Amino acid sequence: MARYQLYYWPSIQGRGEFIRLAFEDAGVPYVDVARLSPPAGGVPALMRLLRGQPGMRAPFAPPFLKVGRLVIAQTANILQYLAPRLGLVGRSEAERLFAHQLQLTIADVVAEVHDTHHPISGGLYYEEQRAEARLRARHFTAERLPKYLGYFEKLLGKRRGLVGRKFSYVDLSMFQLLAGLEYAFPRGFARRTRSIPGLLALRDAVARRPRVAAYLASPRRLPFSEEGIFRHYPELDEGG
Amino acid sequence: MARYQLYYWPSIQGRGEFIRLAFEDAGVPYVDVARLSPPAGGVPALMRLLRGQPGMRAPFAPPFLKVGRLVIAQTANILQYLAPRLGLVGRSEAERLFAHQLQLTIADVVAEVHDTHHPISGGLYYEEQRAEARLRARHFTAERLPKYLGYFEKLLGKRRGLVGRKFSYVDLSMFQLLAGLEYAFPRGFARRTRSIPGLLALRDAVARRPRVAAYLASPRRLPFSEEGIFRHYPELDEGG
Repeated sequence: MARYQLYYWPSIQGRGEFIRLAFEDAGVPYVDVARLSPPAGGVPALMRLLRGQPGMRAPFAPPFLKVGRLVIAQTANILQYLAPRLGLVGRSEAERLFAHQLQLTIADVVAEVHDTHHPISGGLYYEEQRAEARLRARHFTAERLPKYLGYFEKLLGKRRGLVGRKFSYVDLSMFQLLAGLEYAFPRGFARRTRSIPGLLALRDAVARRPRVAAYLASPRRLPFSEEGIFRHYPELDEGG
Repeated sequence: MARYQLYYWPSIQGRGEFIRLAFEDAGVPYVDVARLSPPAGGVPALMRLLRGQPGMRAPFAPPFLKVGRLVIAQTANILQYLAPRLGLVGRSEAERLFAHQLQLTIADVVAEVHDTHHPISGGLYYEEQRAEARLRARHFTAERLPKYLGYFEKLLGKRRGLVGRKFSYVDLSMFQLLAGLEYAFPRGFARRTRSIPGLLALRDAVARRPRVAAYLASPRRLPFSEEGIFRHYPELDEGG
């Protein structure tokens, strides 16, 4: 069994994808537990840890990572733990803090994207909150999307990575964020592309990294879908 | 000038309060920059850093902390940086990761609380999204609030702190979260108190800590208000 065991929903990219990308780019073996067959894998294996095991503190939600007896949850926290071990962040404390700060800002965007299709409750179907979703999505694509993209573009400037001189896990996460935004809001995203040349170049450079390219072409890369966080509903991609 | 300079909106508790509480409990001096007078302080001083200064990477949003030339943003990231320096977390990596994981889960609750009064857009007034806010708040108090509180109560069990044997910054943040929830949703919160005896005891123990008690009684502690994140609108406190 590989040292790193990732627990996340087996049928979507979701928040787990940010972690999968880090492992794949580093070429470090990991087990995507819920995508294995039961009884060792599958959703039941995920649920067992989520309910809590003796001597192990349950996380609130997936994704979580098991490394020996350690269980780590919260996407950005998992990445912060993994990055030095996978060679995906620099050594200095200042650089690691800044990388984590950016990753948490990306997490904020992701949460806002989720709420474009679930503005009232995660416990209701999209179809039950479609009217509110239209309103929220319109504000997201008109106000929040340009604000976030503008921030990251300015930060990146002429550099080749968001954090420092070294390629980092934040660059991988930015690739995933941009891919998701383009999937969910193709029209809203297209309207912004002229103002984010640096981010688009970064995205394309990430997609060309050999292990990332191999991963994206493999069956391990799940497709975007309307079960995930980035969902394409044409009626949510009108404003902006 | 004190070593630690906190930048946050001067008139609300908001996310900055989680950081103020850590400094106050530790008895470590800090400057709450935007609460000083201009030109050295005030909101203009905050805005200057937010726009970016030469050689300094701008954060996306307050709060942020300036320590020498280092600028750190994202509440949980700031706390993770400060906690070992303030004696508010244990030494092991496992304990720090777990503390941060819980802090990020608290941050998720805070973001959901914000969206109960701003479910459509942060750029609109509450009054412009009141109908949607009622719906979202009803789901929050009926589904999310008990789920989060139940998780933290079970995790705490019979222990005296959420993280480990040692009191931690996460306990301070839990105090603030519970105080905010009770302020915003007095009826919804009252309905849950019987099922969270451990959390309430923790909250009361935090409030009795001498430096916390002195802070809460001082003018440095801003009141909760309808400008902050935890807002009391009676119409949002009906369901559950």
